[in-house]
Amino acid sequence: MTDTEVKPEGEEFSPFQLAARLARNDVADSVEVINQLSPEDAAATIELLPNDIAIEILDKPELHFGAEIIQALPRKHATVLLSGMSADVAADTVQQLEEPARSEMLAALDEATRATITGLLSYPENTAGSMMTTEFVSAPSNWTVAQTLEHIRQVERTRETVYAIYVLDPVTRRLIGAVTLRRLISGESTASILTLVPTTGPVTTSPLVDREDVARLISKYDLLAVPVVDRGGHVLGIVTVDDIIDTIIEESTEDVQKFGGMEATESAYLQVGLGEMIRKRGVWLCLLFVSEMLTASAMQYFESELEKAIVLTLFIPLIMSSGGNSGSQATSLLIRSLALRDVALGDWWRVAIRELPTGIILGVMLGVIGVVRIVVWQKLGLYDYGEHWVLVAVTVAAALVGVVTFGSVAGSMLPFALQRVGFDPASASAPFVATLVDVTGLMIYFTVALLILRGSLL
Amino acid sequence: MTDTEVKPEGEEFSPFQLAARLARNDVADSVEVINQLSPEDAAATIELLPNDIAIEILDKPELHFGAEIIQALPRKHATVLLSGMSADVAADTVQQLEEPARSEMLAALDEATRATITGLLSYPENTAGSMMTTEFVSAPSNWTVAQTLEHIRQVERTRETVYAIYVLDPVTRRLIGAVTLRRLISGESTASILTLVPTTGPVTTSPLVDREDVARLISKYDLLAVPVVDRGGHVLGIVTVDDIIDTIIEESTEDVQKFGGMEATESAYLQVGLGEMIRKRGVWLCLLFVSEMLTASAMQYFESELEKAIVLTLFIPLIMSSGGNSGSQATSLLIRSLALRDVALGDWWRVAIRELPTGIILGVMLGVIGVVRIVVWQKLGLYDYGEHWVLVAVTVAAALVGVVTFGSVAGSMLPFALQRVGFDPASASAPFVATLVDVTGLMIYFTVALLILRGSLL
Repeated sequence: MTDTEVKPEGEEFSPFQLAARLARNDVADSVEVINQLSPEDAAATIELLPNDIAIEILDKPELHFGAEIIQALPRKHATVLLSGMSADVAADTVQQLEEPARSEMLAALDEATRATITGLLSYPENTAGSMMTTEFVSAPSNWTVAQTLEHIRQVERTRETVYAIYVLDPVTRRLIGAVTLRRLISGESTASILTLVPTTGPVTTSPLVDREDVARLISKYDLLAVPVVDRGGHVLGIVTVDDIIDTIIEESTEDVQKFGGMEATESAYLQVGLGEMIRKRGVWLCLLFVSEMLTASAMQYFESELEKAIVLTLFIPLIMSSGGNSGSQATSLLIRSLALRDVALGDWWRVAIRELPTGIILGVMLGVIGVVRIVVWQKLGLYDYGEHWVLVAVTVAAALVGVVTFGSVAGSMLPFALQRVGFDPASASAPFVATLVDVTGLMIYFTVALLILRGSLL
Repeated sequence: MTDTEVKPEGEEFSPFQLAARLARNDVADSVEVINQLSPEDAAATIELLPNDIAIEILDKPELHFGAEIIQALPRKHATVLLSGMSADVAADTVQQLEEPARSEMLAALDEATRATITGLLSYPENTAGSMMTTEFVSAPSNWTVAQTLEHIRQVERTRETVYAIYVLDPVTRRLIGAVTLRRLISGESTASILTLVPTTGPVTTSPLVDREDVARLISKYDLLAVPVVDRGGHVLGIVTVDDIIDTIIEESTEDVQKFGGMEATESAYLQVGLGEMIRKRGVWLCLLFVSEMLTASAMQYFESELEKAIVLTLFIPLIMSSGGNSGSQATSLLIRSLALRDVALGDWWRVAIRELPTGIILGVMLGVIGVVRIVVWQKLGLYDYGEHWVLVAVTVAAALVGVVTFGSVAGSMLPFALQRVGFDPASASAPFVATLVDVTGLMIYFTVALLILRGSLL
């Protein structure tokens, strides 16, 4: 059903043939085809398409090189296409243009379009204001259902969505409420549109609200769009459900990448250059490496104990990794719970008093397995842990309980601490937690060893 | 604006008062209030609400104890509410009922509703079939625009969405295409609805398609709903954009939790019991612990080297964690890329030849920092790494390059390998990767040490 091949194997690229095919294609599929071309070939193809189809393609946020294509087109053609695009995508595209193309292009636009685009560009990235489109349907509250429907029929082509109609006060133009198209078409033609406005009051957001919170609103109230209003209650624009889906997907990619211990990338894996990749991963990797150097310092501090009891070093990796693993479990749980608002910042103590018994029980489980391993190896003669092997086993078990408990509690508290001081809780990456728990884990292990083995092995 | 408090501080719970308030509330807010009650109190409140409001509340997937509420209501009242709910949510609710309530409730439903619900229950979990609702609008292709609009007005109340109208062949009832409501209201009243069907053919899915793939379709084509068709081309139901948003959020929670090294939980953190929490985390933690025991075996194998060169043990945690960190970075990148289809299974070699230089460069960066640390500590007299300290520094640097390169390549290949053998790539959790890299990291470290230090320290 879908047709997303660029060209039959072995044939030369022809923008004419491709344009002819894209004109019949579904837009979403055409975008996939265009994404496989170089920006120059893409621009050559777009130039040959009828304007309405070219605009539909450029309007898709899935298009990779929108700005490059606009830049490669003849200036006049580019301006026509930009004016036809939806305001939010046009603003994003203009933002990505290089100078002087950006200023020239803005100057060439008609005044209304330019004002809309520069208005949208003034909002910070990732806010409702920067995502919204100004192409929505509104109606004064003194219109009838028939008048409103007639208005929708006239403006339908130029609006991103017509499924929500915003009813405004005819004098102040303040938002009174939202009427869905489904209610409108079932209403009496002669009735006032005001009779269809629900009594619960409209769900709205403000231009500086974070896009994650807008996503939460749309998902909670099952909306197709949410109006963005200023302090006076005037509608500045709307954020639609399509944009929100893209947002949610982008945010979860960011969360997973951050949790993996790197800065989030903006492009697809194979599109990120080697330099950018090294930068996004290297900074965190070096920071973690420097913090992890504390483990070497801790080991140096306990050097004399290490020399006396080489057998203790055998379990260092095992104990450290158990702390890191329990920590990253707890962190991943709480990052999501905070992101989904299942848990609020003030719930930290509820979480702490749940993680404490959880950590102790999990630690005891691992401790038992550890003891079994030492006993079996000793008894079967697979390895000799020395004359004090029973005490060594007790040390390992006790250290595991301590380290896993610490890992669970620290791992669960870290996202709260980060959110408290204004960071994204997702910055509590698995490697970050592991590093934190590694250093403490070593201290716990050696302290337990000193307590249990003093006088025998140490 | 929102009103989601259960009751004023210190007052006793009264279902009457609460029901009176909920009847005026927005449904989404009412769901939040009900979620704070025990299932018994919730049922007592729901029982007092007018049926249409109770049904709207029970219809929300955000409601935590839908099945418990239905079960706590008088059987007859419960049946009325179930019949009124949208078919997909009603099916989910029935599935969660305990026996004998489940069979009794199904038997009490009217035949049509029962047939729909048992039909939906027959599809496996997380497929399009299990998510779809059967309440959509269809129209035979010989209707006019006016006839179709009139039909929508009549059935509007009982349909989950009316924004897409599915045009069927009047004889075979096969799907011909989808017309959006916005096209319909702008069409000529007397025109045939067939003139409004786009020529590109409808985007459809099949009942056994995974919900993640349905989400991808809706997001790619910016749809408000996608029809689920059988092999003969008949529409079985539709999956709407609201359900898809919930799916995407749920899937990313699963991904983050799996990546954190635990089984995904289905409820909010504070709702998961201690027993379930221990089970979901303990299984993975114990498995990882047992695998990580290989590190102890590796250390035992190199015991004589460890005794001769205690200084080598100091860097074990540092080197192991660097491998784990670079591995979890690479894994998190590739998990998302595979999930978003940025990278296909066949691209594994493209990724491998990118990760190889990336890993080497990152390893060299850490190696340089490691050497600087040893030189500075030695020269400043902070620690004495022995007479062969230069060789020790070289060993640490070389091991870091090897371990980080291995971590990056292995971490990036693991999600491909898992997907290849049919697992979810997200099962490649950070702890899993760390464990894999820990054991190999130790082997790399000691092998490098043997090569460089033989004859001097070893």
